[in-house]
Amino acid sequence: MQRTSFADMPCSIARTLDVVGEWWTLLIIRDIFNGVRRFDDLLQHLGISRNILTDRLNSLVDKGVLKRARYQERPARYEYRLTEKGLDLLPVLLLLMRWGDKWLAGEQGAPVSVIHKDCDHGTIPTVMCSVCGQPLIAGHLHLQVNVIGTAA
Amino acid sequence: MQRTSFADMPCSIARTLDVVGEWWTLLIIRDIFNGVRRFDDLLQHLGISRNILTDRLNSLVDKGVLKRARYQERPARYEYRLTEKGLDLLPVLLLLMRWGDKWLAGEQGAPVSVIHKDCDHGTIPTVMCSVCGQPLIAGHLHLQVNVIGTAA
Repeated sequence: MQRTSFADMPCSIARTLDVVGEWWTLLIIRDIFNGVRRFDDLLQHLGISRNILTDRLNSLVDKGVLKRARYQERPARYEYRLTEKGLDLLPVLLLLMRWGDKWLAGEQGAPVSVIHKDCDHGTIPTVMCSVCGQPLIAGHLHLQVNVIGTAA
Repeated sequence: MQRTSFADMPCSIARTLDVVGEWWTLLIIRDIFNGVRRFDDLLQHLGISRNILTDRLNSLVDKGVLKRARYQERPARYEYRLTEKGLDLLPVLLLLMRWGDKWLAGEQGAPVSVIHKDCDHGTIPTVMCSVCGQPLIAGHLHLQVNVIGTAA
């Protein structure tokens, strides 16, 4: 269980981790991106306990990352879909994957390749500047604290 | 404490979370990026317990994300610096920040602006295709599992 809430820290990294910063949460979101959307399928695919999965799914619905959608009437059965807020986590997942591919995959190489349908090439997701389009790299950024009353 | 190791899953997201997927870990890395590199400074800035901080720093050194560097001889004192592997986590942090800025910052707006020194503009870190340079968005990607013996 989470003992400290980061939500009140004036930092968007801390706030984001308060929503998704837990071992299982991003893997649940990964699976839903990949089309594993039903409780029993997630249970089996993740090898997670029923209690933890229930807790994490409820939390992600409460926080607006997932929504429940009924796929069967009698008995009522639901699947989990990403909201717009949840779909917007794709870049985070892509970057976690890219780092693991580069630093943790070992000799066997990347387990999964990402094909960009628009250009039909295998792509390496890369973080670029929205203004000039160049890759953003350490040492080339300046962080400017915005004074908004409670900023530390 | 972590009860399940994701390191053996044939998935780079799971492997990455095995290294950095814990509430405090990415905030420690964030602080070291921002120049908070000494144990006591991290302790104070994060409001974390001494035991947890020691454990997380040792784990990050063991996993090659941080390295210890002596900054004082007598008594010997060390600070923590990012290795190349650690510096390469910057894009992950930028994307976590971007998501929090967009979805969790509320009316006060982003606590911190990122200035890209190369073009001298406020930038929104954006995940682009390394081949065609267009933003990577949900629905425009195809994941291709690479058969490497143990892929599930």
